[in-house]
Amino acid sequence: MKITDIYNTQIAVGDPPLLNAAGLHAPYALRIIVEVITDVGIIGLSEIPGSEKIYNSLEELKPHLIGQDIFQLHTIKNLIQDEFGKQEDQRGVAPWDQRLLVHLFSAIEVACLDCIGKKLDRPVVDLLGGRSRDKVPFSAYLFYKYEGAGGELGFDMDSNAFGWLKARQEEALSPDQIVSQAKAMCEEFGFQSIKLKGGALHPDIECNSMLALREAFGPDVPLRLDPNAIWSLETAIKYGKKMEGILEYYEDPVRGQKKMGALSKEVNIPLATNMCTTSFEDIPSSIQFGSEHIILSDHHFWGGLRASMELNKICQTFGRGFSMHSNSHLGISMAAMTHLGAAVPHLDYALDTHYPWQVDEVIKGGKLQIEEGFVEVPKGPGLGVELDREQLQKLHTRFLECGLKERNDEVEMKKVNPDWKFDLQRW
Amino acid sequence: MKITDIYNTQIAVGDPPLLNAAGLHAPYALRIIVEVITDVGIIGLSEIPGSEKIYNSLEELKPHLIGQDIFQLHTIKNLIQDEFGKQEDQRGVAPWDQRLLVHLFSAIEVACLDCIGKKLDRPVVDLLGGRSRDKVPFSAYLFYKYEGAGGELGFDMDSNAFGWLKARQEEALSPDQIVSQAKAMCEEFGFQSIKLKGGALHPDIECNSMLALREAFGPDVPLRLDPNAIWSLETAIKYGKKMEGILEYYEDPVRGQKKMGALSKEVNIPLATNMCTTSFEDIPSSIQFGSEHIILSDHHFWGGLRASMELNKICQTFGRGFSMHSNSHLGISMAAMTHLGAAVPHLDYALDTHYPWQVDEVIKGGKLQIEEGFVEVPKGPGLGVELDREQLQKLHTRFLECGLKERNDEVEMKKVNPDWKFDLQRW
Ligand SMILES: [Mg+2]
Ligand SMILES: [Mg+2]
Repeated sequence: MKITDIYNTQIAVGDPPLLNAAGLHAPYALRIIVEVITDVGIIGLSEIPGSEKIYNSLEELKPHLIGQDIFQLHTIKNLIQDEFGKQEDQRGVAPWDQRLLVHLFSAIEVACLDCIGKKLDRPVVDLLGGRSRDKVPFSAYLFYKYEGAGGELGFDMDSNAFGWLKARQEEALSPDQIVSQAKAMCEEFGFQSIKLKGGALHPDIECNSMLALREAFGPDVPLRLDPNAIWSLETAIKYGKKMEGILEYYEDPVRGQKKMGALSKEVNIPLATNMCTTSFEDIPSSIQFGSEHIILSDHHFWGGLRASMELNKICQTFGRGFSMHSNSHLGISMAAMTHLGAAVPHLDYALDTHYPWQVDEVIKGGKLQIEEGFVEVPKGPGLGVELDREQLQKLHTRFLECGLKERNDEVEMKKVNPDWKFDLQRW
Repeated sequence: MKITDIYNTQIAVGDPPLLNAAGLHAPYALRIIVEVITDVGIIGLSEIPGSEKIYNSLEELKPHLIGQDIFQLHTIKNLIQDEFGKQEDQRGVAPWDQRLLVHLFSAIEVACLDCIGKKLDRPVVDLLGGRSRDKVPFSAYLFYKYEGAGGELGFDMDSNAFGWLKARQEEALSPDQIVSQAKAMCEEFGFQSIKLKGGALHPDIECNSMLALREAFGPDVPLRLDPNAIWSLETAIKYGKKMEGILEYYEDPVRGQKKMGALSKEVNIPLATNMCTTSFEDIPSSIQFGSEHIILSDHHFWGGLRASMELNKICQTFGRGFSMHSNSHLGISMAAMTHLGAAVPHLDYALDTHYPWQVDEVIKGGKLQIEEGFVEVPKGPGLGVELDREQLQKLHTRFLECGLKERNDEVEMKKVNPDWKFDLQRW
């Protein structure tokens, strides 16, 4: 089964004005939809974070991949390494990962596994050893935010957005507003654990938000706070001590493995990361420093689904927990995350997802459903989702119109607050 | 694709009188041939080390597996764990691994992957991410031995044995005889590296054998010595120093991770193991103690082919080399090892195999060929080998006649030398 063509389509997805340590979400999140076309007529899909750099690299890669057998994923990884491995390829300091190679390989690997699943008439989870569970737990993901629900042109009531987002577009800047957001989200989706994206407001407000969530939801709903590495060690210790017994885990409060390792000795809360241990190369020092208890995988950033299975085994082997990170994404990524989440043998934590926040969708049938906080493995072969070409066209047109070339939350924040700037350590 | 039946057939395979730290190989090595029958008419094969305990457990497991989908390997692993996980399950002190769970799961997993490959019309290597190489390097595997070539009834010139074994049945108890054995083996198979099974004779003889091999083959042929953990730390240091610059690696000269870690500080030769780090549970302390540089996997002992891929990633992640251990085996195991060896991205060492020593064969077409030290990935779907039912029947009959129930090299040695006994540390 050989690759005969690859279509890479840049899309812009309505995204609410969410706040984080790096600034403010733009009105649109960029994604790339990848279609791998094979000589047997099967088309494999994947979805990855968008940027001009990633898109151009995918296009540059295309002629090297045409003619390759979709099963030869080790060969494809080597081809990508040969083509782009000499470039600087750093994660960057933003909350999201900016490495090229892992994005490229993930894009192709997921689409190839979709092809193999379709050929076999089997779901992707079965290519990863089969189900360790039938439905996958996700966590509510709260954000401080300004008023609005995504898209420069105002909110489209005919869009694919979930009902809760259609109903509530108000700001959330206080503990009370965060509790209100949590209640609305949990009512619609039944989430059984709650994460707050921190690093956006003063630690007093964020810590008080967690205490207010505990008050509102009680001790049976696990809570997590993610300051995205923007707190000093002192700040993380000070507020961490106030949240001992309250947090299920404390996600990247400080920057880097050494500070995380130091923090873990001071505060009695499990530490989680998607910023300080983000690649296989980082793992030996993570073990050496004891820098975190839980690694938040992301198949877009760890180089695909099979690499994430390997990471899962490493976490199990070294007594680390495993869960999943998320960026703004649509249903193809959600499907891939769900297949992976169903396959991994070692999973004690509900996964992150931005999915409830995305106004748009690119798969047929609208959004995948989240019920009682769980997503079922999509039925059907491969990823189990089909591309809605009308939506794809619409979101691509919007990409062309919106003029965004890459994610830059600092630029967006400066539009609201010209004096704002990103700091590696703010509080 | 559901399992409708499983046939487990015990066989006895002619095995020469090879010496090792645990005694003497019996005239027959025991293997079990597993056939997983599915509702679509596809039959998957695997081969594992035989013993009454493993055979009985496979039979006991059968009713639990009938009706299971062959893709649900995580479920099957959990079923095996539920059924047998409460039993004591130790590796034991012998050179070979005696744990039950990994054998059972490996037996079923390999056969299921053979089924999936056949269903897809694809080789098993393609279910592991595809080829990292087209042909897989193996090493010569020398033994001290008594006269003979295997089988109580004398050597069968009509057997499937390789030519070199038909031609030479003499003893090998001195450095000169070892060099002569090496030359014969390398002439037939073109091996480009050489391992000697040590721990059998006095370290002076074994060390001199390595020096004689170096003299005979020169510095371009990597050499390895495996005393099977029977040397003291002092002995290992003393002889190790004599072999610095001569050995590619020094395999389990001492027993346990702590002694291996201590040895690695004293002797400038990479250490390899299939005795001190033999499970995922052993890996954290292996890293902590720095107990070896190279882990010798064995899919029969590490719980299958996918687990071995995960081990490969762990080795790569932590800067450890990866190669493969072998026991006496036939063509089904050889095929599985070759698919795995072709798939693993991280491989710097030729793999071990006892294959040249085995008189018999159980696959159609006779033995897989070794050329210039390499084995090509078998053509054809799945493992790419077919069962020769006439041979299977012959070897099963021989199993029934020979009366062996498990491997016990000490018992065999006592037949030759009644005063002999196994020591945890002999020299
Ligand atoms: Mg995070
Ligand atoms: Mg060994």
